[in-house]
Amino acid sequence: MTERLYIYDTTLRDGQQTQGVQFHTHEKQHIAAVLDDLGVDYIEGGWPGANPTDSAFFDAAPQTKAQMTAFGMTKRAGRSAANDEVLAGVLNAGTGAVCLVGKTSAFHVTDALGITLEENLANIVDSIAHIVSQEREALLDAEHFFDGYLADPAYALGCLHAAIEAGARWVVLCDTNGGSLPQDVARITAEVIKAGIPGDKLGIHTHNDTENAVANTLAAVDAGARQIQGTLNGLGERCGNANLTTLLPILLLKEPYASMFRTGVSVDALKGLTKASRMLDDILNRVPARQAAFVGASAFAHKAGLHASAILKNPATYEHVDPAVVGNARVIPMSNQAGQSNLRKRLGDMGLEVAKDDPALGRILDRVKEREDAGYSFDTAQASFELLARRELGQAPEFFEVKRYKVTVERRKNKRNKMVSLSEAVVVVKVDGQKMLSVSESMDETGSDRGPVNALAKALAKDLGPYQTLIGDIRLVDFKVRITQGGTEAVTRVVIDSEDSGGNRWSTVGVSANIVDASFEALLDAVNWKLVRDVV
Amino acid sequence: MTERLYIYDTTLRDGQQTQGVQFHTHEKQHIAAVLDDLGVDYIEGGWPGANPTDSAFFDAAPQTKAQMTAFGMTKRAGRSAANDEVLAGVLNAGTGAVCLVGKTSAFHVTDALGITLEENLANIVDSIAHIVSQEREALLDAEHFFDGYLADPAYALGCLHAAIEAGARWVVLCDTNGGSLPQDVARITAEVIKAGIPGDKLGIHTHNDTENAVANTLAAVDAGARQIQGTLNGLGERCGNANLTTLLPILLLKEPYASMFRTGVSVDALKGLTKASRMLDDILNRVPARQAAFVGASAFAHKAGLHASAILKNPATYEHVDPAVVGNARVIPMSNQAGQSNLRKRLGDMGLEVAKDDPALGRILDRVKEREDAGYSFDTAQASFELLARRELGQAPEFFEVKRYKVTVERRKNKRNKMVSLSEAVVVVKVDGQKMLSVSESMDETGSDRGPVNALAKALAKDLGPYQTLIGDIRLVDFKVRITQGGTEAVTRVVIDSEDSGGNRWSTVGVSANIVDASFEALLDAVNWKLVRDVV
Repeated sequence: MTERLYIYDTTLRDGQQTQGVQFHTHEKQHIAAVLDDLGVDYIEGGWPGANPTDSAFFDAAPQTKAQMTAFGMTKRAGRSAANDEVLAGVLNAGTGAVCLVGKTSAFHVTDALGITLEENLANIVDSIAHIVSQEREALLDAEHFFDGYLADPAYALGCLHAAIEAGARWVVLCDTNGGSLPQDVARITAEVIKAGIPGDKLGIHTHNDTENAVANTLAAVDAGARQIQGTLNGLGERCGNANLTTLLPILLLKEPYASMFRTGVSVDALKGLTKASRMLDDILNRVPARQAAFVGASAFAHKAGLHASAILKNPATYEHVDPAVVGNARVIPMSNQAGQSNLRKRLGDMGLEVAKDDPALGRILDRVKEREDAGYSFDTAQASFELLARRELGQAPEFFEVKRYKVTVERRKNKRNKMVSLSEAVVVVKVDGQKMLSVSESMDETGSDRGPVNALAKALAKDLGPYQTLIGDIRLVDFKVRITQGGTEAVTRVVIDSEDSGGNRWSTVGVSANIVDASFEALLDAVNWKLVRDVV
Repeated sequence: MTERLYIYDTTLRDGQQTQGVQFHTHEKQHIAAVLDDLGVDYIEGGWPGANPTDSAFFDAAPQTKAQMTAFGMTKRAGRSAANDEVLAGVLNAGTGAVCLVGKTSAFHVTDALGITLEENLANIVDSIAHIVSQEREALLDAEHFFDGYLADPAYALGCLHAAIEAGARWVVLCDTNGGSLPQDVARITAEVIKAGIPGDKLGIHTHNDTENAVANTLAAVDAGARQIQGTLNGLGERCGNANLTTLLPILLLKEPYASMFRTGVSVDALKGLTKASRMLDDILNRVPARQAAFVGASAFAHKAGLHASAILKNPATYEHVDPAVVGNARVIPMSNQAGQSNLRKRLGDMGLEVAKDDPALGRILDRVKEREDAGYSFDTAQASFELLARRELGQAPEFFEVKRYKVTVERRKNKRNKMVSLSEAVVVVKVDGQKMLSVSESMDETGSDRGPVNALAKALAKDLGPYQTLIGDIRLVDFKVRITQGGTEAVTRVVIDSEDSGGNRWSTVGVSANIVDASFEALLDAVNWKLVRDVV
């Protein structure tokens, strides 16, 4: 018999406390729909009344299987719950559940709030009772519970008991400042249950200030808590909240949790986890964290040569779960730590079958090492790696030759006496014995200068004679720059991501002390790779 | 009586297993020096012989108080330890300590390595004994220990005992695949100690694949392990290693650890932690993780209104440690009173005394926010910040005006029919009503092209009339580029470090979609700041 574990998502409320994060209403609706597809039990949508976007979200809240929850705080002292207009604003959102933060730390009651311990207790009881009287599900977020319990366990426990007696469905132990460590959370949660608060009415809400938000959550579950609060990608105030993107696969895939519990999230829904994580980064316009557990682009990347060769024999040797179960993928990057077996596998994946004893394998590895020493990196520039390998294998025809290029970057006053900048590039290539000159400038559709690399990319792809139809649809979609050595010896590495109209995407690298020249090298590889793919 | 806990850093070895990370030798030297200043006990420098950069690092390893350690693997089967050339390569680095990874999982011995369990055991024993016979300190990294122990505890334990008997100073329990959860690590570590491996010879090496690397490390320490392996910023294979930047403050500042243990890292050295973390990001040209525990820019940012107002009464209300003890700082939204007093203090430090009610304070804060929204960052570009503030305060005279500039980047064949690149810059300025034209090219003393920014820097500093004597000695000493938004909306941020002959060093920032133009803006600030400093 498995026990039910409840997942409470607060991406839309505590997640929005992240520095620099402010969701639009339509973004909140989109995130709520994705959370609902995953199968979480509660979606905390925000604090209606306190924040215009939150109010707008509840006004047009999507229909969800999950219990939509409004957040607020317990009534203020000196008025009844029914007459507290902040609490009324929360209830007016009309959600099936209402979660109120209430103080359970005596120090915070007297020092931060400046009221008596009895007044605070009455605020909790009256507020919870009021929510229940409105036929809503009531939750108490017990703020600063762990710190409060350490200083005054009787008062902290008293607040929980009072809330349960007033009809709260859940009391949630919050590690508000994020400073509690797993051994404290384990012990205190066990003591709370021993003191009479049932585990199936007990939730856990942790923060990542010591990088222990996930471990603290697991410690509370181990001790008996049965509701988990967290956010997608661990978004949240300061260092973030407990990361549901990590907790869900742990609870569903790893023992003892997988055998002990069932949740509203199915193993099948988990396949959408990586996509859900990227969706949030997309909305926030953030670069996804490569090293994120389970869903990061590097989470299943095996760089060490020993690891990579064992993975080829049996993925279980260096993978604790199959990346496909969370919608992620295995990556075996090229690097100077990779061995020949890794290399052959990699080439095979590219359609290049090479015999085990082909001396080209050694030459390719030497060439990779040599280039990495000069500042190149092929981990993310797979297309440049393929070209390098093909050249050593004699499988990279020279489609055209660059005779020269010239780029001009200029800043001067325009006719309206305004300073403007503009770049212009001329590229001269020889294709099938014929010389072709192309010129382009850096202006985009809106009239903004996109810089010299943009102008070069356009000029290079403007006229390659017989190959033009194959490269005319290449778009430069991303551009990364790294200075690989400091000071006056600075060498610039440029990685360029290109895309064609078929949705194919590939990455190339260039290195030079001259940033424009490094970019040109990467652009050249991008064009050549596309030609190799379509022609060879 | 406190117990000694040993800190073993593997940023230079396991950290380099991070996708996209490849340190240069001088970068490794710099990181080693910073680690040594922090006070770690061991610095694992790499795998000599397997990697040219690692060999080069050991050839010129810095003198450190920390024990410099070379990494390798146990000898292969079918030859003696003395005749294994891979092991010889590791010993040839001449370090005081040698750490060898050895298999302790029966499944890996037979399936990945394809040798017998007895052969593997002999490989461990002979290798450790060989290191000890060379009068080096020997460590065994027990690969896949936790998985191996679950499947075949007797064999996994046998490997540890054999290594200790052969003279290993430490055996390190490695959660190689990163899939172990805290309750497993706690139980198994306790069982290992119960089986006779002394805790003060036991290390722990975890990975972050379930976001539990820190918690797993703490669980092992709770159980009795006394060596901790980790990396700065949690760099490392896949999801990274245990993060020393998080573990050190936990161990030094938080209970029960602070009272139980002493380490080579002092509470005073901990004040350099945030700086050490930024140093590594700088070398990797990574955007520092805002939400990183302890050292992140948001780690002590209080966005919620309730939190911010309580913090003003008493920081302990919403902070689990004082940010200053890790060299970090509290952040309270710029718009309020606290933001303005912080700003006044900062301006005062620059010698700019501003009255409490000066409306320029609000304007400066607005301008900073506006620029940060556009991609600027003033964290490291203090000189640009000072210029911005001075302009709002009316204390930044316009020494000269840039009328226009033009840079050409060209690649073509030279007289010897070799492709070469060259950049040339023309800058036109107006100084005291007089127009000055300057031209420079990008060639350095060795005849190498240093690129368009170098040419621009030289042209700008070539002739500023009466101010020439003040700026003639400016040298561009560092140049960092970051693309602050992905995709086609990419905006480039350039930070330039300049130096004069008096040894003064200052940093300026420029932002534009055009990388050359962003660089020019930073160069212009560099010259203006020097003039403000020397003239005003």
